[in-house]
Amino acid sequence: MLPHRKTPETVMARLVMKFGGTSVATVERIRNVARHVEREVKAGHDVAVVVSAMAGKTNELVGWVKEASPLYDAAEYDVVVASGEQVTSGLLALVLKDMGIPARSWQGWQIPIRTSDAHGSARIDGVDGDGLAAGFARGEVAVVSGFQGVHAPSGRIATLGRGGSDTSAVAIAAAIGAERCDIYTDVDGVYTTDPRIVTKAKRLDRVAFEEMLEMASLGAKVLQVRSVELAMVHKVRTYVRSSFDDPASPQAGTLICDEEEIVEQQIVTGIAYSKDEAQITLRRVADKPGVAAAIFGPLADANINVDMIIQVVSDDTTTTDITFTVPTADFDRARTILERARDQISYASLQGATDVVKVSAIGIGMRSHAGVAAKAFRALADKGINIRAITTSEIKFSVLIDAAYTELAVRTLHSLYGLDKA
Amino acid sequence: MLPHRKTPETVMARLVMKFGGTSVATVERIRNVARHVEREVKAGHDVAVVVSAMAGKTNELVGWVKEASPLYDAAEYDVVVASGEQVTSGLLALVLKDMGIPARSWQGWQIPIRTSDAHGSARIDGVDGDGLAAGFARGEVAVVSGFQGVHAPSGRIATLGRGGSDTSAVAIAAAIGAERCDIYTDVDGVYTTDPRIVTKAKRLDRVAFEEMLEMASLGAKVLQVRSVELAMVHKVRTYVRSSFDDPASPQAGTLICDEEEIVEQQIVTGIAYSKDEAQITLRRVADKPGVAAAIFGPLADANINVDMIIQVVSDDTTTTDITFTVPTADFDRARTILERARDQISYASLQGATDVVKVSAIGIGMRSHAGVAAKAFRALADKGINIRAITTSEIKFSVLIDAAYTELAVRTLHSLYGLDKA
Repeated sequence: MLPHRKTPETVMARLVMKFGGTSVATVERIRNVARHVEREVKAGHDVAVVVSAMAGKTNELVGWVKEASPLYDAAEYDVVVASGEQVTSGLLALVLKDMGIPARSWQGWQIPIRTSDAHGSARIDGVDGDGLAAGFARGEVAVVSGFQGVHAPSGRIATLGRGGSDTSAVAIAAAIGAERCDIYTDVDGVYTTDPRIVTKAKRLDRVAFEEMLEMASLGAKVLQVRSVELAMVHKVRTYVRSSFDDPASPQAGTLICDEEEIVEQQIVTGIAYSKDEAQITLRRVADKPGVAAAIFGPLADANINVDMIIQVVSDDTTTTDITFTVPTADFDRARTILERARDQISYASLQGATDVVKVSAIGIGMRSHAGVAAKAFRALADKGINIRAITTSEIKFSVLIDAAYTELAVRTLHSLYGLDKA
Repeated sequence: MLPHRKTPETVMARLVMKFGGTSVATVERIRNVARHVEREVKAGHDVAVVVSAMAGKTNELVGWVKEASPLYDAAEYDVVVASGEQVTSGLLALVLKDMGIPARSWQGWQIPIRTSDAHGSARIDGVDGDGLAAGFARGEVAVVSGFQGVHAPSGRIATLGRGGSDTSAVAIAAAIGAERCDIYTDVDGVYTTDPRIVTKAKRLDRVAFEEMLEMASLGAKVLQVRSVELAMVHKVRTYVRSSFDDPASPQAGTLICDEEEIVEQQIVTGIAYSKDEAQITLRRVADKPGVAAAIFGPLADANINVDMIIQVVSDDTTTTDITFTVPTADFDRARTILERARDQISYASLQGATDVVKVSAIGIGMRSHAGVAAKAFRALADKGINIRAITTSEIKFSVLIDAAYTELAVRTLHSLYGLDKA
C-alpha cells in the first residue's frame, strides 16, 4: 500500500531519524537532537526527522481529555493529543534554523500521511513523499510530527496509538526510499536478551526482520511490533541506536535488515520473555467434535487473543484437559466468558494462573537445524523447571513456565545456545 | 473579500460565540463555557464557538520558541503557538459531547480560514463557511480554534497575532451569515469611559461600528481594532458580554451595530485615553517647501506611525516649531532617525516627552453638532490643563496633555457631555 519509490541515483543519501519523548523533553535536549541531525546533514544525507511529544506532555494532554470526558470521543482525543508532536516539530525546526541548517516542520495532514479512521489507533494507508522530496531539493531538513496522520475523506487528524512514532518513521522511510531509518532510543541496540537478567547479554550488530518481529511480539520492548512489520514488508533497514551518545562520536547500534545482509547466521539470536500471559485450564472437557469452536469462538468474538494451546487426554478417555494462554489484561474477561458458556462447552472445572511467564528462543538458523527446541526442553528439565505449554514456529519456540523460574530459564537458554560468548 | 451569504430563512438562527484564554483556563472553566453554549443551542441557534488557548499556554509556547531561537522563524512560531488553540477546541468539543450536545472541533486549515503569508500577524483573506454549514445541518456545534488560519498556497499554519481570536470570530460570523457575534470577555460591555478612573462610567447598550472603531483605536481595550474593522465592513452585529455570568441567567452587554439600529444618538458616546503616545518637538525648523517630507518621509520608511501633528510659527518668522506624536514603543527609534536626518531637515533642537496622554471624545452625534470640541478646550483650560496638540475627525477629537492630568481630563469631559447621568 505504501509507495516504495527507489531511484538509487537520487535517494541513496536519504535518511530518516526518529527521536522519542525523552530525547526531546526540553529545548536543551532538542538542541542535542539537532546536533545529531547536523552530523548527518554534513555527511551529505537528505534528512527527515520524526519526533514525538516532549516527555510528559502526552500524559498531560490525555489527563485533560479524560477530565473533559471520561468516555471521550476518539476523534477529539486525537485533536488534543496530536498537538504535542506539533509543538516539538516546530521547536526542532526552529533550533535547526538557528544553527544555520535549513529546515521546516511537517504535520501529518501536510505531508499527508493518510490513515484509516480508527481514531486513537489508526492504520497508515499511505504516505505522499513528494512534498518532502521537494523540500530536500531545496536543501531543507524535514521535521515530521510522529504519531499522527489525517483521515483524508473527513480531513480529520488521526493518531496511530502507543509507539506510533516508530511506525511513522518507518512509513516515511519507505515513502521516500530512505537508505536507512535510524531509531534513537534509550538503549543502544537490540540485545541477545534482557541485560537486567543476564549480565552477559550482548548487543547484536544485525538482526533479521523476521527475528525482530518475533522478539517484539514476544516481549522485547525496543520497537513496536507494527513498525517492525512495516519495515519488513517494505524492506526498510532500521537501525536502533542510542540518543544519549555524544552527537560528535556516535556509537554502534543494531541494524534490523534483510537476512541476506546477515553473513553469519546464528541458530538462536536471542532469548525473550513475556510476563503478559495468563494460563487457563479447562478440566475434563467432553472430547467431541466442535468443542474447540465452543471454547475459542466466544473468546475470538470478544477480541481476546489465544496464544498457546495444549490438549492432554485426561484420566478417563471420553474427556480431555485443555490449557491455553490469553493476555493478562484479558484474563478476567476470558474467565467470565468461559464460565457463562460452561453448559455449551461442558467441562468439570476451570483453573487459572497469572504467575506464569513465556520464555522464547528466536533465530532464523532454526529453519535449517533440527532438534533445537528438544535440547532446550532437556536443559530446562535438568534444572527442575516444569513446562506447562509449548508453541513452536519456523524460527522460534516458546515455553510457558512458572514465573518464579523466569531468570533461571532465560539464563539457561542464553548459555545453552552459546550467547554468553563475546 | 469575505463572502457574506445571507439567506434569512436559514441563517437567522446562526450565532458565533467567542471565549478568551481566561474563560478556558481549566477544564472546569471550559465546562462553564459549554453551559453558555448549551443555553444558545437550546434557544434554537446553530452555534459556532471560537476559542483561544488556555490562559498561560500561549506564553509557555512563546517562551519555548524564544529559547529555541531568539530570532525565530515566524512560520515555525505559528506551528508551535497554534497548538494552544487546537487543544482548547478539542477539549470543548469533548465536554459538549459529554453533555450530550453534538459537536466537533475545527482547526483553521480544516475550515479553511485562508490567510496571507505574513506569519505571526497574518490577514484573513477568506473563510469557507460550507463545512461549518454542513455541520450545522447535522445538528453539530462547530468548535473553532481562534487566532489561526492557513496560507493556502504553501499549506502552512498562519496565526493572526495578538487578539486574533476576536478577528477569527467576526470573520466566521460574516462567512456563515450569523445573526450576531457574541464576544465573551472579562468585562460586561463597553463603557462610557474607563470605570477605574470614573466611577460614574456607564455601560453602553449600543455603540455604532464607527464609534467602536475610534474607541478601540484610541485606547479602549475591549476589542481589537482589526476585529471592529471587519465587523464594520461586513456589518456583523457584535455583542460584548461577560463570561463570568451565570450561564443560566446571562446579563446584558453592549451591542456594536450599524448606527441605524441606534435610536437615540448621543453627541458624545465615550471618552477614551491612551498612554501609548510620545511627543517629539523639533524647534526652529526651516520654514520652506519640502520640510514636512524631510521629517515624515524617513519615519514612514521605518514604519513609524505619526499621529498628531501641530505646527507653530516660532519667534523668528523664517522657522517654525513642529510637534507630533509617535507610539511610545517607537519613540527611541524615531529620535535616532531624526537625529541622523538633522542636516537634511535643519532644526535647532529636538525635544521629546513620554509623560503625555491622548484623551479623546467619540460620538457619531458630532457630525451634526458644531462646537463640540471648542467646548472641551474651554473646560480643560478652566481646570488649568495645557493642551499640547489637537486632532479632530468627523466623529471624534483628541487632545494631547501632560500624563499627570489624565484622570482630571477624563472626568471633566465625561461630565461635560452628560455621561455621568444614568
